[in-house]
Amino acid sequence: MGVVENKQVIFRDYIETIPKETDMVLKVSQIEIETEIEIEIEIERSGQILLRNLYLSCDPYMRGRMRNFHASYVPPFVPGQPLKGYGVSQVVNSDSPDFKPGDYVTGITGWEQYSLVRPTQQHLRKILPDDDIPLSFHLGLLGMPGFTAYAGFFEVCTPKKGEYVFVSAASGAVGQLVGQLAKLHGCYVVGSAGTTQKVDLLKNKLGFDEAFNYKDEPNLDATLKRYFPQGIDIYFDNVGGDMLDAALGNMRVFGRIAACGMVSLHSLSDPQKLHNLYNLIPKRIKIQGFLQSDYLESFPRFLEHVTSYYRQGKIVYIEDMNEGLESAPSALVGLFSGKNVGKQVIRVAHQ
Amino acid sequence: MGVVENKQVIFRDYIETIPKETDMVLKVSQIEIETEIEIEIEIERSGQILLRNLYLSCDPYMRGRMRNFHASYVPPFVPGQPLKGYGVSQVVNSDSPDFKPGDYVTGITGWEQYSLVRPTQQHLRKILPDDDIPLSFHLGLLGMPGFTAYAGFFEVCTPKKGEYVFVSAASGAVGQLVGQLAKLHGCYVVGSAGTTQKVDLLKNKLGFDEAFNYKDEPNLDATLKRYFPQGIDIYFDNVGGDMLDAALGNMRVFGRIAACGMVSLHSLSDPQKLHNLYNLIPKRIKIQGFLQSDYLESFPRFLEHVTSYYRQGKIVYIEDMNEGLESAPSALVGLFSGKNVGKQVIRVAHQ
Repeated sequence: MGVVENKQVIFRDYIETIPKETDMVLKVSQIEIETEIEIEIEIERSGQILLRNLYLSCDPYMRGRMRNFHASYVPPFVPGQPLKGYGVSQVVNSDSPDFKPGDYVTGITGWEQYSLVRPTQQHLRKILPDDDIPLSFHLGLLGMPGFTAYAGFFEVCTPKKGEYVFVSAASGAVGQLVGQLAKLHGCYVVGSAGTTQKVDLLKNKLGFDEAFNYKDEPNLDATLKRYFPQGIDIYFDNVGGDMLDAALGNMRVFGRIAACGMVSLHSLSDPQKLHNLYNLIPKRIKIQGFLQSDYLESFPRFLEHVTSYYRQGKIVYIEDMNEGLESAPSALVGLFSGKNVGKQVIRVAHQ
Repeated sequence: MGVVENKQVIFRDYIETIPKETDMVLKVSQIEIETEIEIEIEIERSGQILLRNLYLSCDPYMRGRMRNFHASYVPPFVPGQPLKGYGVSQVVNSDSPDFKPGDYVTGITGWEQYSLVRPTQQHLRKILPDDDIPLSFHLGLLGMPGFTAYAGFFEVCTPKKGEYVFVSAASGAVGQLVGQLAKLHGCYVVGSAGTTQKVDLLKNKLGFDEAFNYKDEPNLDATLKRYFPQGIDIYFDNVGGDMLDAALGNMRVFGRIAACGMVSLHSLSDPQKLHNLYNLIPKRIKIQGFLQSDYLESFPRFLEHVTSYYRQGKIVYIEDMNEGLESAPSALVGLFSGKNVGKQVIRVAHQ
């Protein structure tokens, strides 16, 4: 095949606030798609495999990798190198007995058309194409965001049937599944989102009992009192800030708050002014920060349960699919203003 | 005995901020200390017993009962009536088979010299005088504050040997026992307090590894980094506010914060500006509000353990004893400026 063009989205330099499109640069480099014999030698030396990327995932956690902060659970991106994130790819060439050309895989890949990766370092996992389930769902419903919803709701929130559940950023990649799992578990579920269209999806497609547009609500405390006159047992928090404060003031005794994300923050060290934090004590509230990666032993069970629910039509999943790697920077940036409707994915190439 | 004077500390009216002395009024009323026959008739009708109060406890939670807020775990005080709180008393007269004149009891009593109470409503419990253990310790080391330390440390913080523990308001009624239990458990313990005298007590009498005066520290984040270069596993929070924020920024992965009190707040709805709340997520921190009353099944074990430690000289306990009911308002108010050194008790009468 020889040498082909490899479009890449390059991370320019460290930032502290939410990303702008100009923090990323589109670059065209070249990559050698060697002949089989050549690659064999190369692979023996390198242990790498060559991927053709099909779908890339835009996730809010990625802003954390854009900071010059090396003590986190995940290292920062390297300035001048392509961004990295979850992707679905097809193997072009491989020396590994676990992956052969043509295989579909998911794991961490580069924001580029072709990536040369080491399977173990990238947590690469083979996926079997399935007519009923789009490949891109392995970045959302059946991937990290879906598992975040599953682990966060069942392991962190310890829900009981009949409990009152509130989900913020409820139509997002994680929130939409949290709400549906909560309904299947017999809970009462209200979601918040930032547009009328999303509120409509929550109520009419995703099966939430109620939903509201937080931008239309001048007083979030009063809003939550209206939707939860009896109080909230579980708050699945994707946004932090004012919504977290309002929720704290409306929790029931022994309430649980899963701190999953704080997408409302402009900078991750933005001061958050909480008026209702004292409620923690008389109401014995638990706030638990969590990462899905601590619960990976439950991943196979999650995959089985959620796949089965999806096949039975008990769960739906909304994707926001952008076409072309060129659209990746604006898609990532859009997460932080709520531009995406559902899980944000970028299609880099057609299967 | 007939009619005797009964000095009382009357709760004037609801407040929102920390109490002032003028929120309480000293009043002298009269109470009939009936003859035995008279009281027998009275008791049959009323089911009450008459207590002569010996010691009264000043506890920060009492401010919560001074608010016009009826949805809490404990109802507000009644304006015009005496304050109520934990006390140690002697039974003067009783119709109950469980309590007889001369018995020492602890439970909820009025801020007055004599109280007519219903034993079950006041959670009254008989205590046996013990030459080794002052009666007043049933308001501190062996009472609600001690049990708060015990339940909060063992049940909420789930400590492991060798962990790094930080305690705020560390020489107070609760903090001083948390620190000593943590040391006995094999942890490294640092405490904060608000005077040089208290810091000295923490280091030289209470066995903390280190202690500091937070009023001398211009940058609490830097202070905690100095005392915990490796980070904090457990923060037992009695103060909230800036110290909680600084601790959040210095927690280790899987750290636990027990939210026990927020004595730094001028008003319980004071906004708290947290810069480090986002740390919850990447560090998987748990913040758990708690009340000792949820763990009462462990109370007998607590009493046995802590009494035994005390007898063996493995635990000490510092009391701040005020003399006379007249000193009660200023003693209560003093809690919120840290005037007390150790557990604040008021001696109403000598045994």
